[in-house]
Amino acid sequence: MPAGIAADAAGAVSEQRLWQLLMDVARYGATSKGGVNRPALSTEDIEAKRHLVDWARQRGFDCYQDEMANLFIRREGGEPDLAAVMTGSHLDSQPTGGRFDGAYGVLAGLEVLDALESARIQTRRAIEVVAWTNEEGSRFSPGAMGSSVFAGVRSLASVLGTKDRAGISLQESLAAAIAAVPAAVRPRSARNLHGYIEAHIEQGPILEQTGIPIGAVVGVQGICRLDVQIVGVEAHAGTTPRSARKDAFAAAVAVAAQLQALARDEADAVRFTIGRCEVLPGSPNTIPGLVRFTIDLRHPVHEVLRDIADRIRPVARQAGKPCEVEVSEVSYVPPTRFDPDMVKLIEDWCGALGYPCRVMPSGAGHDAMHLSKVCRTGMIFVPCRNGISHNEAEDVTPAQVAAGARVLAAAMMDLAAS
Amino acid sequence: MPAGIAADAAGAVSEQRLWQLLMDVARYGATSKGGVNRPALSTEDIEAKRHLVDWARQRGFDCYQDEMANLFIRREGGEPDLAAVMTGSHLDSQPTGGRFDGAYGVLAGLEVLDALESARIQTRRAIEVVAWTNEEGSRFSPGAMGSSVFAGVRSLASVLGTKDRAGISLQESLAAAIAAVPAAVRPRSARNLHGYIEAHIEQGPILEQTGIPIGAVVGVQGICRLDVQIVGVEAHAGTTPRSARKDAFAAAVAVAAQLQALARDEADAVRFTIGRCEVLPGSPNTIPGLVRFTIDLRHPVHEVLRDIADRIRPVARQAGKPCEVEVSEVSYVPPTRFDPDMVKLIEDWCGALGYPCRVMPSGAGHDAMHLSKVCRTGMIFVPCRNGISHNEAEDVTPAQVAAGARVLAAAMMDLAAS
Repeated sequence: MPAGIAADAAGAVSEQRLWQLLMDVARYGATSKGGVNRPALSTEDIEAKRHLVDWARQRGFDCYQDEMANLFIRREGGEPDLAAVMTGSHLDSQPTGGRFDGAYGVLAGLEVLDALESARIQTRRAIEVVAWTNEEGSRFSPGAMGSSVFAGVRSLASVLGTKDRAGISLQESLAAAIAAVPAAVRPRSARNLHGYIEAHIEQGPILEQTGIPIGAVVGVQGICRLDVQIVGVEAHAGTTPRSARKDAFAAAVAVAAQLQALARDEADAVRFTIGRCEVLPGSPNTIPGLVRFTIDLRHPVHEVLRDIADRIRPVARQAGKPCEVEVSEVSYVPPTRFDPDMVKLIEDWCGALGYPCRVMPSGAGHDAMHLSKVCRTGMIFVPCRNGISHNEAEDVTPAQVAAGARVLAAAMMDLAAS
Repeated sequence: MPAGIAADAAGAVSEQRLWQLLMDVARYGATSKGGVNRPALSTEDIEAKRHLVDWARQRGFDCYQDEMANLFIRREGGEPDLAAVMTGSHLDSQPTGGRFDGAYGVLAGLEVLDALESARIQTRRAIEVVAWTNEEGSRFSPGAMGSSVFAGVRSLASVLGTKDRAGISLQESLAAAIAAVPAAVRPRSARNLHGYIEAHIEQGPILEQTGIPIGAVVGVQGICRLDVQIVGVEAHAGTTPRSARKDAFAAAVAVAAQLQALARDEADAVRFTIGRCEVLPGSPNTIPGLVRFTIDLRHPVHEVLRDIADRIRPVARQAGKPCEVEVSEVSYVPPTRFDPDMVKLIEDWCGALGYPCRVMPSGAGHDAMHLSKVCRTGMIFVPCRNGISHNEAEDVTPAQVAAGARVLAAAMMDLAAS
């Protein structure tokens, strides 16, 4: 192992301590099937954040939150006026999510801080660990919301009115969450950031299948989120002939089939998902009068993604006749390319620490997409079992997550010294 | 108008009094769009039944309920030991239902009792009006449940464990509803019934389109209710290639499309409806792992209905691959033919009272289906606006419902004297 502060920090990362922290935080919203249900700004999410504040207070680290309830933990550097080096991810989960998606990136950051403490390393720049609010987007849409507001990609005002399915506004939820987390509210400018590295499970099968422990992420495919609403006419299931129906669900089936065909590419690179579908009034013997469904569409190339996204409305309107079809684009995040220097930094430290590394794109969106707009940004992937994520069965080994934290620690030390 | 008790009873029917009663009961569960949301055994349903009990008590009629919370109001006849003549329908509604579906049949029965009172008619046989529990089947499946247990088509024990979507059992709901309605619980045997006539809105467009005020119903098409469950694998929408997915919603679209094709007949006589569909976990960026939907399938000919119903499972299993598809048949009610004498009785009284009458089948299921198993049974249809039902826009005119009540009164007097 190479000498120097970076190597010392990597060497001080404790597999056991990191795993214990992951298991501690996995209790908040734990499900009976071994996963996590921790919606953004829910009681469980707040409890997880309170756990982090306690953790930071015990170690004397500064701890504060911004107006999006993004939570920051800061270990001061030798030159406090220099821009800080940041790492982190998110604590919110899918409704039937796993223990590592997001939480790993935050807790790997805390483990880096613990490693610095135990190795008594004084960094030149401050190190900050952040837990971004609402990365998943499953309670409040769109996802990666906290980091997007932080990076100025979206304004705070533009998201405050967003409501969850129970009709609770983001504004209301933010106020309650901020009040419940015992950390001062201070705006955190995106300007004085020297760099951002996010550790995350791959959420795909490639690292596991190739037996490579670390991925250096070159970028994130583009993501377009759309909502489709189909309006028919409620009528009696027994008395209304097929020819006289405006059946919103029958129309939805036709629309979904046409859109699936539109998104079907030979290369199998387009990701098209209808993840939520509501059928109203939802009675077995009433022809549905209203269907709403979501579309999650992704592709690594902006032109391809934009083209498919633009063809969804006319295709859906045609396929949905005689019902009325409305398509609205909720968000469009073009493909992201991370700073090649950051990819190289991660690759180099993998080499120095003896970890094989694969340079690879990310199929999933991450908070790092938005951070890349305001500072040099990179991502470190670790494998997850069978590539499964957004599933309670999501799993990793203690050694896998520790390896990622070691590379993270070394790369951050490099940045903090520069 | 012809002379005699039957004509006197018909003549004593008050359009204004019946309309007032319909409007009074429409307040229970009234929606802002002018419809009714009165789920079976809900607070609103119980309040509507309490209204009927008050109504009966004010007039000194006997009032009691059975173990299915079916509510009976009895005007005693001159020979109390003779089998009674019964009319009625149901008070529960679809989630976004109308004011007349079901309620009309019950309240037309009460108007007949009021007409007998005002005309001081003493009938030979007792007249009973019944409000059957859970005809709609939208809270507890299957529908026409109260009348089916009354008629011995289903056992009480076989339905008690049924649960609504909130997990509340029918047994629990029945106990609470029976306790909340101030009427004695007495078993009502189906044996001592001399005949049953149910008045109902047509729920289709034929009477309105042909300008005919009364339908004499010859029978009800058969109804098969099925539940379909499709099991896939939850996975990340951004990282999982199409070829590696087991997307339960994509499978549901394929299954629904194939089943729609299976049910597509040239004559447009098959009624195939998917009225409820749940997609889980219901997050925009998670590939659905589970879809459940309902099928409501109807046809006037048993052989045709049975054949289509039997082909649903293999077609769905094949179309749903690579997901697992389970199909379960919730209920099968074969086509019903009412007693031709009852059809003729209604036709004859239409003629005598000067109302044009159309002999016609029913597209919708009704409690009368089950009553036809235990006594001579008939049904009287009145038109509804644009044939719309199971919709808050459902509407009728005071004159239309009064005409049906007059024919009902006359036909019941005929039966009560025989």
